[in-house]
Amino acid sequence: MKALVLNCSLKSTPEQSNTEALASVLVTELVSNGVETEAVRLADLNIPPGISTDLGDGDDWPSVHEKLLESEILIFASPTWLGHPSSIAQLAMERMDAMISETADNGLPVAYNRVAGVVVTGNEDGAHHVISQVAQGLIDIGYTVPGQAWTYWNRGPGPGPSYLETDEKHEWSETTGRTAASVLLAVASALQANPISPEAYKA
Amino acid sequence: MKALVLNCSLKSTPEQSNTEALASVLVTELVSNGVETEAVRLADLNIPPGISTDLGDGDDWPSVHEKLLESEILIFASPTWLGHPSSIAQLAMERMDAMISETADNGLPVAYNRVAGVVVTGNEDGAHHVISQVAQGLIDIGYTVPGQAWTYWNRGPGPGPSYLETDEKHEWSETTGRTAASVLLAVASALQANPISPEAYKA
Amino acid sequence: MKALVLNCSLKSTPEQSNTEALASVLVTELVSNGVETEAVRLADLNIPPGISTDLGDGDDWPSVHEKLLESEILIFASPTWLGHPSSIAQLAMERMDAMISETADNGLPVAYNRVAGVVVTGNEDGAHHVISQVAQGLIDIGYTVPGQAWTYWNRGPGPGPSYLETDEKHEWSETTGRTAASVLLAVASALQANPISPEAYKA
Amino acid sequence: MKALVLNCSLKSTPEQSNTEALASVLVTELVSNGVETEAVRLADLNIPPGISTDLGDGDDWPSVHEKLLESEILIFASPTWLGHPSSIAQLAMERMDAMISETADNGLPVAYNRVAGVVVTGNEDGAHHVISQVAQGLIDIGYTVPGQAWTYWNRGPGPGPSYLETDEKHEWSETTGRTAASVLLAVASALQANPISPEAYKA
Repeated sequence: MKALVLNCSLKSTPEQSNTEALASVLVTELVSNGVETEAVRLADLNIPPGISTDLGDGDDWPSVHEKLLESEILIFASPTWLGHPSSIAQLAMERMDAMISETADNGLPVAYNRVAGVVVTGNEDGAHHVISQVAQGLIDIGYTVPGQAWTYWNRGPGPGPSYLETDEKHEWSETTGRTAASVLLAVASALQANPISPEAYKA
Repeated sequence: MKALVLNCSLKSTPEQSNTEALASVLVTELVSNGVETEAVRLADLNIPPGISTDLGDGDDWPSVHEKLLESEILIFASPTWLGHPSSIAQLAMERMDAMISETADNGLPVAYNRVAGVVVTGNEDGAHHVISQVAQGLIDIGYTVPGQAWTYWNRGPGPGPSYLETDEKHEWSETTGRTAASVLLAVASALQANPISPEAYKA
Repeated sequence: MKALVLNCSLKSTPEQSNTEALASVLVTELVSNGVETEAVRLADLNIPPGISTDLGDGDDWPSVHEKLLESEILIFASPTWLGHPSSIAQLAMERMDAMISETADNGLPVAYNRVAGVVVTGNEDGAHHVISQVAQGLIDIGYTVPGQAWTYWNRGPGPGPSYLETDEKHEWSETTGRTAASVLLAVASALQANPISPEAYKA
Repeated sequence: MKALVLNCSLKSTPEQSNTEALASVLVTELVSNGVETEAVRLADLNIPPGISTDLGDGDDWPSVHEKLLESEILIFASPTWLGHPSSIAQLAMERMDAMISETADNGLPVAYNRVAGVVVTGNEDGAHHVISQVAQGLIDIGYTVPGQAWTYWNRGPGPGPSYLETDEKHEWSETTGRTAASVLLAVASALQANPISPEAYKA
């Protein structure tokens, strides 16, 4: 079983990413259950806007696309800006839009039998909305989103410290993150054992 | 396997419900696969606002709650008003909010190992947003939402005929609805065979 | 100048309303500037679902509708449930939907030249989303929403005390509320002095 | 009076932009009323992600920022991807986020006394949601959004032709666009005659 973290922070390496810090709670839990995990920080790559899998010379998306297809579990991690998923999160969903019409060898959409969870940080408010946007976008594409497969840390109202600048309420976000990891793994395993099959699929 | 349709139309029986008409596509598909289905039109019941399962004398919600717990598959069907889920859809989610802290005999939240899909109608625009709100709300509660487990018929821009007043684009909405039914059944079956277990659950 | 507060709490009198408490900050500021204000707690009234202004016997909405038409300023106040506006908030917007096709004596939609602001409370997260839904709904109907005409108090992540159970961060929410009141009054005054006119209106 | 169109299409010049085509209806109406208008296609520029006004060498945003400050009217035009505003629309809002703390000579936030409208295209569904996100984002920043200051063309359900590939329902979108232009101009004029003043502003 493999899991991929897409970190949609606006900041590139080596700047510290709050989103990565919270996502690492899920990673640790998955690793301790034998899942191989990898994280990609999209701001470090060259990903032009568009809705095709390969936009040609210099486009780094095809390598991300390949990692997506190798992973049964996707952890989609986004900061919150103006209460919304980051522009890089939306950029990733737009590039993933091509997957709607890509089919696996069995004829099913490539995202079928994969699960996705959501991690959100932000120093104000907006996590539930970010979760709604990411979950709906990934469900459109074909990912299954298990119940409670998310965690967040947004500490409004108004401006305040970032996740890594305080310890306030980390415990809740971390416990919730471990729950998310456990349901992601359980549902991914259930789909691995009894996948949606081309025979059952009606289109 | 049982499926429950929650019809969140603002109109009560015997008024015609466009939402029910589109939901029936999924019902037919599920029935033909041996699933026992039942539909509840919430506007026909007395459901006061609140966030508890039983608000006392005259509250019809406890019977709906019971049906929810008997069903592995939930089809949440809502019209679109001002681009949003109907007030009755939000009322239902508020009453379901109590399920977050209700646990089954195995100690897991009662909605775990259940799947939910979304059906949306409307004579203008807004289906993707309604899907995002319902999916996120039900995922909060513990339902698993399979990839592409939805269909819709919103025929904007601007005002126009309702679903039952025209044949335009019904074919797409119906085909998409049959796909939704098939993935709902496949993922519900996978979770029945290999449920999220109390041992795997980390909270 | 008149202002109306629509309190969309799920709780009826005499239960304490957090939403009312925060809305009162704007009321105090408006009153101190000579604005006549009134508050309606919708949960105290009988308001059936629908999209007409008058649903007949026992419908309390027509009296609310009348107050809306007497007020240049609307303060739409909602709690947050599952990250969404309350079902009563959506019910109010559905009933206000009829105003889209109601015209004033000058032929313009009745909501033109009126302004609206938003007040949100909740013990978790979701204010920005509630603001987005209420603002878009009221803009659809014809209300003008001035910049920063909102305040909120949601103190996530995870569950915690309600607004009236703690003093944390009240100062920010109150200051932001006074700003909201001041811009509502300023823009309402500008529109009173130079209203959108039937001559300028292009439809 | 000046108006600026921010075209948030994913496509750069010389590709045809559906969003630009619909936005031009508002431009024509404004120009015929003596408003000087300019359009910027953000995909043609180099705009790195971030939340500051100037990200240094090669950043094209500062010139857009300058145009924003010269314009009393903003027309924010976005396509719909996965039911959301485009990543470029979100990128623009993130860069505009810095304007929240920028003040004019009179001490008020720079976006005060400016108005914004929204134009949305898409071959499926999602306009109301895009309007809600853009309106809330710009209201956060300080823009006033007049009632009905938007138009859209999304022709769901399911995939179909783009705006420029069909004539279906253009009339409704164009009429609605002319209304939007007329209310934008009327409210901008009212605020020019009676601006929100530093004396009235309470912060």
